[in-house]
Amino acid sequence: MSDPDILATLRDLLPDGTVSTADAAVLGRSIDASGAPAIGAALALVQPRSTEQVAAVVGAANAAGVPVVPQGALTGLAGGANAVPGALLLDLSALNRILHIDVEERLAVVQPGVTVAELAAAASAAGLFYAPDPASAEWATIGGTIATNAGGMRCIKYGVTRDAVRTLEVVLADGSLVRTRPSTIKGVAGLDLTGLIVGSEGTLAVVTEATLSLLPAPGPSRGVSAVFPTLAAGIAASNAIAAGPNVPSTLELLDDIVLGAVDAYLPHAGIPIGAKAWVLAITDSVHGADAELSAFERIFREHGALTVDRADTPIELDRLLTARRLLNQAMRALRGGSLNGDVSVPRSRLLALVERFAALANELHVVIGVGGHAGDGNLHPVVAFDPGDPEQVAAAHEAYQRISGIAQQLGGTMTGEHGVGIEKLAALDGELPPRLREMQRAIKAVLDPNGILNPGKKY
Amino acid sequence: MSDPDILATLRDLLPDGTVSTADAAVLGRSIDASGAPAIGAALALVQPRSTEQVAAVVGAANAAGVPVVPQGALTGLAGGANAVPGALLLDLSALNRILHIDVEERLAVVQPGVTVAELAAAASAAGLFYAPDPASAEWATIGGTIATNAGGMRCIKYGVTRDAVRTLEVVLADGSLVRTRPSTIKGVAGLDLTGLIVGSEGTLAVVTEATLSLLPAPGPSRGVSAVFPTLAAGIAASNAIAAGPNVPSTLELLDDIVLGAVDAYLPHAGIPIGAKAWVLAITDSVHGADAELSAFERIFREHGALTVDRADTPIELDRLLTARRLLNQAMRALRGGSLNGDVSVPRSRLLALVERFAALANELHVVIGVGGHAGDGNLHPVVAFDPGDPEQVAAAHEAYQRISGIAQQLGGTMTGEHGVGIEKLAALDGELPPRLREMQRAIKAVLDPNGILNPGKKY
Repeated sequence: MSDPDILATLRDLLPDGTVSTADAAVLGRSIDASGAPAIGAALALVQPRSTEQVAAVVGAANAAGVPVVPQGALTGLAGGANAVPGALLLDLSALNRILHIDVEERLAVVQPGVTVAELAAAASAAGLFYAPDPASAEWATIGGTIATNAGGMRCIKYGVTRDAVRTLEVVLADGSLVRTRPSTIKGVAGLDLTGLIVGSEGTLAVVTEATLSLLPAPGPSRGVSAVFPTLAAGIAASNAIAAGPNVPSTLELLDDIVLGAVDAYLPHAGIPIGAKAWVLAITDSVHGADAELSAFERIFREHGALTVDRADTPIELDRLLTARRLLNQAMRALRGGSLNGDVSVPRSRLLALVERFAALANELHVVIGVGGHAGDGNLHPVVAFDPGDPEQVAAAHEAYQRISGIAQQLGGTMTGEHGVGIEKLAALDGELPPRLREMQRAIKAVLDPNGILNPGKKY
Repeated sequence: MSDPDILATLRDLLPDGTVSTADAAVLGRSIDASGAPAIGAALALVQPRSTEQVAAVVGAANAAGVPVVPQGALTGLAGGANAVPGALLLDLSALNRILHIDVEERLAVVQPGVTVAELAAAASAAGLFYAPDPASAEWATIGGTIATNAGGMRCIKYGVTRDAVRTLEVVLADGSLVRTRPSTIKGVAGLDLTGLIVGSEGTLAVVTEATLSLLPAPGPSRGVSAVFPTLAAGIAASNAIAAGPNVPSTLELLDDIVLGAVDAYLPHAGIPIGAKAWVLAITDSVHGADAELSAFERIFREHGALTVDRADTPIELDRLLTARRLLNQAMRALRGGSLNGDVSVPRSRLLALVERFAALANELHVVIGVGGHAGDGNLHPVVAFDPGDPEQVAAAHEAYQRISGIAQQLGGTMTGEHGVGIEKLAALDGELPPRLREMQRAIKAVLDPNGILNPGKKY
């Protein structure tokens, strides 16, 4: 089928205004927040308004052998939703209804275009809690967070998106609609197709409805942060907290490069002189929060904290989080450009990891600042560079690739929560043995025999 | 390859005493705790002592096209480990070492033959906690609980076995050895093969090593039980607790048939007259346990409990658990035979579920008692029958099959935690659409192209 044929088919199947080939529309939806270039020019932007329309688009694309790139808010950081040549960009944003919040069952049924923040607010209004909290929660859609198995700051206590997904309604590559399993909490009647689809980055099926577990509302979030004279002391304090017995709801780290960048970006953030590491522990426990905060504070002091700050109100906590929230922005401001990594290692290797990034930065004459979710070993190294200097650009990209290899050598992974997309394809060799990669491609071929779903990504 | 050929090959590959074709040895390992008959006569019992030996057995079997049935302690309740014709029964019990308990990372690395109780004890000795707790924990092996994605009483708070599995080392069908992913807490570098293998009942790969998450030690377990004058009141009380805000670590239910059976089996268990439902809520919270127990007690009283018992010590709690622990035994004692179901439904359908089981029992002139994990909607209906009466045997088996259908009609599943094995194959039609079953078989074929791993089960 030629390009005009599939477009004509889609225009027959869908209401007016659903299919656009206008350059501005298509190009505006061709790359995600990674800034990675599109693999090629997409054919059209398709914006269905119902599950039936999604099924019709995918079915027609499959029959025509036309690639489909499922998209949400384009907040992804791995190029997973970037355009590929001749593709239909399948924007699911208009499927944005919260269909049901069930207080007795503690679950929500939502369409994929609902944002994480919208769901969190609806859950909260019902006295419940949606735990996954990627940094992009305000814009990121549930569909996108399912595609990437998104994490966030609260994973150390509540797990990742996969842990919240009970069942999915999906459109398969041939356009048929199936539900992966009943919505029960437990169930072992088949292979875990739900879990297989979560994190598959739109390559196995298109999610059209998700049934998600909600939790009882936690207590108010309160936290303690501390600044340490050495990176080793900060990481040791973080690891001491993570080992228990009081598991915080958030446990974050920033290294001295990030602290310097934040200080330059926002001098009144109040980063102390000599700060080599910053650690923040939050609790949202309903019972025992005071004791937990005191325990965190004690651990910080035992590890030689230079300063300790405590936040007992939302405003105070917001202030404590400022430096952490500025990680990417402040690092980018250093030189104008940045590449955001996403590695995860066993916690005992965190110090070695950050030290090896520092050595890499020295070797390549780039700047690498590191911050993120120390509590679950998932850090975001940010490479800062001058986008106008070709030598720096090349060095930054080399650093970015080698960051993955360093994490892998330390028993870790090149991606803790962002996904592979197109940005991390090259690093897969260092992580998954050829046999497993073959197997994953063969499983992909079972679900998508014509290879139309988000080709050129993930595998 | 003929039977003697594969046996000769195995005897060449393995140390003396590893392969047995003696009837007593083979028959003694041919059926699991379900009591379901073997599908056919196995060829030999093979008891490797190392990962390399497991790989050698599986590789040789694959080359010869000989089926392999991976086995643990045979505590399964679905016939998943039962013999199939001409198979090698691959007993993994001798791979029984706890290789590593890592306090800082809060994880354990174990061989598949370690029992759940052994791991729990080792974790406890290190000040940590292994959460999965199937009723068979004393004997069930980690390998078997991974194969079935086993649950237990603590799932409502801590999830199922899958939630504890970080990574697996597995022997693939061709005898090659791979690790599914790094041992990091988070990671999205590939499709979730780990989750796919958990719960696959030995049909995709043979687990030779598991890296499992441990949690900080919980507080002491304390509980409150209550007896209600109607089933509806008991289930309403249970659901009110499950909805939060205090999530118990265990929330169990028994209906009046089970209570009667327990009273007959052990009169001094002290079941009150007029008891139509029994509910037990346990907390193991480190902080706030007193407030939680009071909240549970208040909910029980608000729902019209006839009696409320509180257990603040391990001995008292053990006494409260007596009736629940006797569920299967007491039901079997009623008539000499029993079939153990394992359905799961949304909690709001629990009352309808038990009422429909009662109607089914009336219709078929059988006895069905129901108890189990009401907190996560996972109940175990037990059909009691006289094994010497062919009419009762037939009626009991009909009831057992229809129990699955009733759960499915109520939006549930025929198996919450026991697995499909061979016992529930017939009920799969009612739960998974043909398209998903096809897809699961095709995924199975990717991992096991010759179909040697536990054939005739699960799909």
